[in-house]
Amino acid sequence: MTPRLPRNLVRRHPERGCYDHATINAIIDEAHYCHIAVVRHGCPVIIPTLHVRIEDTWYVHGAVAAGFKDLAQDQPVSVAVTIMDGLVLARSLYNHSANYRSVVAFGIPREVRGRDDKMTVLKAMADRITPGRLQDAGVPNAVEIRRTRVFAIPLDQTSAKIRSGPPRDDPEDLDRPAWAGVLPLTLTMGAPVPDPAQIPPISLPEYLNDHLTRDE
Amino acid sequence: MTPRLPRNLVRRHPERGCYDHATINAIIDEAHYCHIAVVRHGCPVIIPTLHVRIEDTWYVHGAVAAGFKDLAQDQPVSVAVTIMDGLVLARSLYNHSANYRSVVAFGIPREVRGRDDKMTVLKAMADRITPGRLQDAGVPNAVEIRRTRVFAIPLDQTSAKIRSGPPRDDPEDLDRPAWAGVLPLTLTMGAPVPDPAQIPPISLPEYLNDHLTRDE
Repeated sequence: MTPRLPRNLVRRHPERGCYDHATINAIIDEAHYCHIAVVRHGCPVIIPTLHVRIEDTWYVHGAVAAGFKDLAQDQPVSVAVTIMDGLVLARSLYNHSANYRSVVAFGIPREVRGRDDKMTVLKAMADRITPGRLQDAGVPNAVEIRRTRVFAIPLDQTSAKIRSGPPRDDPEDLDRPAWAGVLPLTLTMGAPVPDPAQIPPISLPEYLNDHLTRDE
Repeated sequence: MTPRLPRNLVRRHPERGCYDHATINAIIDEAHYCHIAVVRHGCPVIIPTLHVRIEDTWYVHGAVAAGFKDLAQDQPVSVAVTIMDGLVLARSLYNHSANYRSVVAFGIPREVRGRDDKMTVLKAMADRITPGRLQDAGVPNAVEIRRTRVFAIPLDQTSAKIRSGPPRDDPEDLDRPAWAGVLPLTLTMGAPVPDPAQIPPISLPEYLNDHLTRDE
């Protein structure tokens, strides 16, 4: 369990708050990207970016040329992922809601500087997208590794927030003759689209078939 | 077009930057939720929340009891939505990427206080989820409106960033015998799940059939 600190405590709908690592990790791992917020000249700035979790650390990477320069100064960040599971249609507008699983983390990032340590994170990112991809894709060369910054955010000031299930209407609204329920949302993966530049065609590697089957 | 200011200029991959209102608005409207970042005691805080756009203004709402208290103090915010369209598998790990459409906005929110103005926004939120819903759902009463805060963020410091299409590998990697291409991702809506508390069953309203057909 992560500690419940003033910063990561779920105050609104506390029954939706989760603090156990297994729940938090599963949500982070399912999300294909995260949003990271930094403070620049006193103003918040959000950056969507790719990510990976290894054990109790959340890693993001970005080009040296990108907004990631703000992350170099040991300034606090907030990182979030949200997976939308459905739209909740209640009998009253007020109780309309969404089913979702979100994680918000707070922390001060540490830059990962060693070449081997950076490679470990970059390989884990590839593996997150498609387990098995590493056997095919060319690994980054020294210049590419230098051009990429990797930051580590410890997952020790984190909480998840989850809403699931049907609408929860107030008792006085239950007789209202309005359809109530959930419109489920799922992120689905379509058939792989080969790069048109790929001539002659290269057959789809087995790890992509596995990946597609697993997600469907 | 929105002006290109130091804050909203897309610096990394400038070719992915978009500043026209039609593109920005379409991305905001397609996203079911946004992330809003505020600064609390010098630290960034991200909150995922529901939203709606009306003309050139982005609206978010939240319970008085929630983190939205930070929004009351005319502090700057950053709001973002990201729609993930696919995972891009290049021949080199370095050129792996994602196809996405994102919008990031900066601004100082104004609280919407008038009952009628708040109702206009709350109704637009319902309409965004399911056009037609307003005819069935009970409108908020005076207490519910008081409990809900609505904030308006002008869309005048905003940009979109879009990546689409196949991987863009470096010329020296093109001969690498690795499958390259895109794994498309789509958020799909499943069959509506009625609230089990709905006894006797109420048939699915026509506007939900329309909505589902439109999204599929």
